[in-house]
Amino acid sequence: MDIVFASRHESNPQEWVAALQRALPEHRVRVWDTLQPQGQADIAVVWAPPPELFSHESRLTHLFNLGAGVDALLQIPDLPDGLTLVRMEDGGMAVQMAEYVLHYLIRESRDLGRYADLQAQARWQPLADIDRDAWTVGVMGGGVMGARVAQACAALDYPVAVWSRSGRPVAGAQSYRQDQLADFLARTRVLVNALPLTADTRGILSRAVFDQLRPDAYLINIARGDHLVEADLLACLDSGRVRGAALDVFSCEPLPPEHRFWSDRRIQVTPHVAGASLVSLTVQQIAGKVRTLVRGEPITGIVDRARQY
Amino acid sequence: MDIVFASRHESNPQEWVAALQRALPEHRVRVWDTLQPQGQADIAVVWAPPPELFSHESRLTHLFNLGAGVDALLQIPDLPDGLTLVRMEDGGMAVQMAEYVLHYLIRESRDLGRYADLQAQARWQPLADIDRDAWTVGVMGGGVMGARVAQACAALDYPVAVWSRSGRPVAGAQSYRQDQLADFLARTRVLVNALPLTADTRGILSRAVFDQLRPDAYLINIARGDHLVEADLLACLDSGRVRGAALDVFSCEPLPPEHRFWSDRRIQVTPHVAGASLVSLTVQQIAGKVRTLVRGEPITGIVDRARQY
Repeated sequence: MDIVFASRHESNPQEWVAALQRALPEHRVRVWDTLQPQGQADIAVVWAPPPELFSHESRLTHLFNLGAGVDALLQIPDLPDGLTLVRMEDGGMAVQMAEYVLHYLIRESRDLGRYADLQAQARWQPLADIDRDAWTVGVMGGGVMGARVAQACAALDYPVAVWSRSGRPVAGAQSYRQDQLADFLARTRVLVNALPLTADTRGILSRAVFDQLRPDAYLINIARGDHLVEADLLACLDSGRVRGAALDVFSCEPLPPEHRFWSDRRIQVTPHVAGASLVSLTVQQIAGKVRTLVRGEPITGIVDRARQY
Repeated sequence: MDIVFASRHESNPQEWVAALQRALPEHRVRVWDTLQPQGQADIAVVWAPPPELFSHESRLTHLFNLGAGVDALLQIPDLPDGLTLVRMEDGGMAVQMAEYVLHYLIRESRDLGRYADLQAQARWQPLADIDRDAWTVGVMGGGVMGARVAQACAALDYPVAVWSRSGRPVAGAQSYRQDQLADFLARTRVLVNALPLTADTRGILSRAVFDQLRPDAYLINIARGDHLVEADLLACLDSGRVRGAALDVFSCEPLPPEHRFWSDRRIQVTPHVAGASLVSLTVQQIAGKVRTLVRGEPITGIVDRARQY
């Protein structure tokens, strides 16, 4: 197979190419060269690929995306219909997302942000003990990421619910189907978004949803910035409907320096780092799938374009 | 049985008495009255009991401590030899300690403290991805608390070791016996103290121990302040041997306002709240053990005075 790596964002593509080549010594792996396309590639491994890739590389059969979310890929105008898109399944991201969520959940449920403020005043002041039943966690999305997040919260005895298209069971959590959103929201205080970004889910984190949560709600968004209506979150913070939010993703990234999220003490901002594809695990997964394809067997993680993920 | 509740620290003893009475309606439960001792008590439920309890209540057979640590109890001069001391086993504390440790572990391993600093400057700057193998966790103490902490870290794929007197296995962690302390320290970067305070463990968190840890080490103390030689920690922070610490317990509590720990940005201070005995779970445990005693059967959690826990 002729395998190319193509990304507009990756600062060190040679690191990926070298790792892929080591994992797949029987195949040719190289950085795709925008200036000298060869038109020979069978497989592309991409993260925000240059759009010209698709006009020049007409032999491509499979596109491996370095992330789990393929919403940006599906926006590319000339994406060939026959091309099979493959998303990352975990790749070290799920456990990262789980621990990211735990950190901010525990910060709220155990008042550790308030204790940091008290430390700054050299004040010794024990606050109320945790009432764990009051910290119901609701995870939107029951895929690899959402399930791992839910399990991690359940392992710390938080009451956890998962809302997903299928309502598929997740160990330790109560499952809600697509048509049970109102019930799911009514029992949720800490809302965690781990959904794919599709036409159905764009803007889902809106005032209408926040208003159905339990009082003193908290939002954790680890999926995509466009899931959130930013003005609605700010309004709900100001009204006291929502107590705070941990946001890793934004409609505009990098988040502009003048954006109000940076300076709002109720919001914790991180720069799209909740779950990174780790080179070693990602390469291992892609290499395994390439070998499966060569053997003519089916692989998992293929994107359903109708469903948009 | 005649059951008394005695504490110099508990601000609302009636809450405990009411909960115990509800759980044990067939027994008499009351707050022990220092001014009018009746000398009739069979069982005392205590948290920092007034020392006069023991001279006035000579019928006492069992003392239930509201905490897991009985070091302070064992310091009481007139504690009768024949009195059976019973420590809390979990009581909702273990999961609290596990999540406390996770919060500060993740803060370091995922740079979330640094991201908070970057947010204050409105700076979007992704830092290096996590190398999980570099974040070896070492838990001192393999009891209910230490084991739960270890399991919680292992569930997030951190390499975890547990050092305990017996070297008893803990699921997901590598176990080290008492005589293997050097090996345990050599592989540990994040050191978590969940030991009982005894003559052997007092001052164990000292320069000699810190110097054996992996570089860029971090300390989390959830046990007792007297485990730590405070001056040694400050010296190791200043030399760069230790990168930081989350401290919940101190030699002197409340921590005096002028103490250097408050203002050192590498130290996170909390006011002895990592694991609180929750009334409902604690009462449930004690009530179960009282009934077991009435049936003449053996109970767990009895303190071995020779071992000091």
